[in-house]
Amino acid sequence: MENNQPIVAIATPSGMGAIAVLRLSGKAVIDIVNSVFHGKNPLSQQKGYTVHFGAIKDADQVVDEVLVTLFRAPKSFTGEDVVEISCHGSTYIQQRLLHLFIEKGVRMAEPGEFTMRGFFNGKMDLSQAEAVADLIHAESEASAKVALQQMRGGFSKELAGLREQLINFASLIELELDFSEEDVAFADRDQLHQLLDNISAVVRSLSESFRLGNVIKNGIPVAIVGAPNAGKSTLLNALLKEERAIVSDIAGTTRDTIEDEMQLGGLTYRFIDTAGIRETEDTIESIGIKKAYEKIDQAHIVLFLFDSRSSTADVKRDYDDIKGRCTDKILVVLANKSDVQAVEKPDFIQHSFINLSATTGEGIEDIHRALTSAVETNALSNNEVVVTNARHFQNLEQTLEVIIRIKDGLNNGISGDFLAQDVREALRYLGNITGAIEIDRDILGTIFGKFCIGK
Amino acid sequence: MENNQPIVAIATPSGMGAIAVLRLSGKAVIDIVNSVFHGKNPLSQQKGYTVHFGAIKDADQVVDEVLVTLFRAPKSFTGEDVVEISCHGSTYIQQRLLHLFIEKGVRMAEPGEFTMRGFFNGKMDLSQAEAVADLIHAESEASAKVALQQMRGGFSKELAGLREQLINFASLIELELDFSEEDVAFADRDQLHQLLDNISAVVRSLSESFRLGNVIKNGIPVAIVGAPNAGKSTLLNALLKEERAIVSDIAGTTRDTIEDEMQLGGLTYRFIDTAGIRETEDTIESIGIKKAYEKIDQAHIVLFLFDSRSSTADVKRDYDDIKGRCTDKILVVLANKSDVQAVEKPDFIQHSFINLSATTGEGIEDIHRALTSAVETNALSNNEVVVTNARHFQNLEQTLEVIIRIKDGLNNGISGDFLAQDVREALRYLGNITGAIEIDRDILGTIFGKFCIGK
Repeated sequence: MENNQPIVAIATPSGMGAIAVLRLSGKAVIDIVNSVFHGKNPLSQQKGYTVHFGAIKDADQVVDEVLVTLFRAPKSFTGEDVVEISCHGSTYIQQRLLHLFIEKGVRMAEPGEFTMRGFFNGKMDLSQAEAVADLIHAESEASAKVALQQMRGGFSKELAGLREQLINFASLIELELDFSEEDVAFADRDQLHQLLDNISAVVRSLSESFRLGNVIKNGIPVAIVGAPNAGKSTLLNALLKEERAIVSDIAGTTRDTIEDEMQLGGLTYRFIDTAGIRETEDTIESIGIKKAYEKIDQAHIVLFLFDSRSSTADVKRDYDDIKGRCTDKILVVLANKSDVQAVEKPDFIQHSFINLSATTGEGIEDIHRALTSAVETNALSNNEVVVTNARHFQNLEQTLEVIIRIKDGLNNGISGDFLAQDVREALRYLGNITGAIEIDRDILGTIFGKFCIGK
Repeated sequence: MENNQPIVAIATPSGMGAIAVLRLSGKAVIDIVNSVFHGKNPLSQQKGYTVHFGAIKDADQVVDEVLVTLFRAPKSFTGEDVVEISCHGSTYIQQRLLHLFIEKGVRMAEPGEFTMRGFFNGKMDLSQAEAVADLIHAESEASAKVALQQMRGGFSKELAGLREQLINFASLIELELDFSEEDVAFADRDQLHQLLDNISAVVRSLSESFRLGNVIKNGIPVAIVGAPNAGKSTLLNALLKEERAIVSDIAGTTRDTIEDEMQLGGLTYRFIDTAGIRETEDTIESIGIKKAYEKIDQAHIVLFLFDSRSSTADVKRDYDDIKGRCTDKILVVLANKSDVQAVEKPDFIQHSFINLSATTGEGIEDIHRALTSAVETNALSNNEVVVTNARHFQNLEQTLEVIIRIKDGLNNGISGDFLAQDVREALRYLGNITGAIEIDRDILGTIFGKFCIGK
């Protein structure tokens, strides 16, 4: 078990701002802050969920005037006493305050340590803790939504319920083993069948939602391919420009992370290796589209772009080439430069076809529609639970595998001790997801290591 | 007068972090936030300085789970009702919340608008408001200290007191003008002399502190000059390396702004155009040190570096050249590569002389001492008030000028109406500093335009 040594971190983004927030959690943090705080009343006597104005002093010197917010265990994010200090957002002051508390014996928090303590103190299960990090990294409506849903409970309760029933069965089976000489069956095999069906239905549906969850979380990879000078960069710029305009209408909220990504209908579309696409423009014609193969392999959606004035033979050759590599992908064919020359859909093209002018913007709307219809988001609008976490997906898949094995075993009259072993394995996989069982330290380290410091 | 239209801004640094804080101020902000807040109790009934956990919803959709802190007028930073919302630090959520409040009729805050409202509502005077911005931009102990001192009152009270006495005098003089036919003197000229002496003593001392204040705020410009290959970049790296090490011992507090700046004894030393210095290394020998002239002109401190193995004639030529341009500057002469060959101080050198090895670090301590002793910081350790603001300095200088003119006038028996006019002018300059008089909108715009958004 984790101890409650006091920890501190800057919880706001790094750099200068109007204000910054330092967060402390653990044993005696209210007293520690109180020892450097000079306000109207001592903090030690104040209730949780109250805010106090005062000066933080290092010996006689005022470091800053701050607002201090108190949270008392267990009613806090970590379940421990928590203090949040809202200071002036100078980088110097942020560091100075950190140093001051480190001198007072408070330790710098590890990434995710606040959330990890919340998990250890039963404030949330592991899948909810993971959702906190996902929520912070969310860059689209859909990814924020599924993370929030998961953080607020998501599938945790349902899985926990099913797991508890399975535990009951497991103990009955173990009981049978204890009385094995008497050849009694405490555990009703029919009920176990029924329970396994319930579990596999839930687990399968969750597991299937991962295909959507993964694209929600990581964005939908899109490749733009075509001969040099077909207008790939112009198209990319035309697609991204609109996005940039939407973002920049709120002053003060720079989103440096958006480079070759686009938000559409709440989802992120990620253009693969567009630096490469741009380079291609400068390379010699003869290299053709061969370079695009790798991009196609990584993509869910492929936009094949050709210059409307190209020879039919050239277009057919490239199209056939690409088509062969897109059997499990969504392929959209774009005839560019419709402002110069619009073309009819050639007979040999079996996929969606759009006349496009990346320059005038004609056809851009059609591309948007093609992109959004390429992803099935019904689950999202129906508020269904969506699994976005690869670790959860893996454990769900492993649970399914074991459950199929158990059912086969039951049908073949497997012996009680093999059955008990398989059920324990299923319980472990299910428990891994919510952290109901003792999780390996290394796995926890990996999970929480991905967090920001201060969370 | 400013109205109290509700405004909103992100108050924490831009980008992703564990948490972010949105700040709202103005009419009905508590009700506005309450209309989208779903917690245990409605916010409208809650007291100031309390914190409330709940979900922010846009229609039926949860945008985030947040902590809401309430401040009720006039006990807030702006003097209006203020709400601070601490949300998950995803850039998407920050934007989404901003959008939500903009949809509810809240306007994006201008830079510094929260502080400007605090000023208009009498929470602080203008010089204190300006100190808030200085504090946020503070990057050294000294600059944070003087900004904080100013924000907490500084010279405001003293200047306000003197100004009030001068106003009393002004009214007595105006009274004399009303009774000018009767030739009475309500205003005691001796007392006026005394008051003017008091004011000019205070104003002069403040004005003189600006020399220190300016270097505290903007850093002390240091030029490193010398022939190519004398080791200028190596020296710079040796000086900066130590600083970087100090900074980087706190994980998670990147200070991207430190590039060619160094903190020493609480002050910032700013190396001028060091990119240029580095370039010089690559240029042809013959260009010599001529390129360094501009850097010398901008510097307060000049470090002249030569290779200890250079010919005396070369060193003397360069030294004489540089010396002529350093009459009002602090010049330190450094003989580099002492690890290869240490040298005696040559006779012709009239300035401080240090044997240096930028490679082994020998002499670096001596350079530190030379840098720190170059700036008189007694005022700082004595907690004297230091003026760091060029606008204040300008008004102080103008006040002094007028006061000298008034004293001359008094001595020469100037007429009451000229006297009254001069006194009004002095009052205007003094009032400009603290904002006691109606300040030009353009000037306010310039002052608050320099703030971060959200402050």
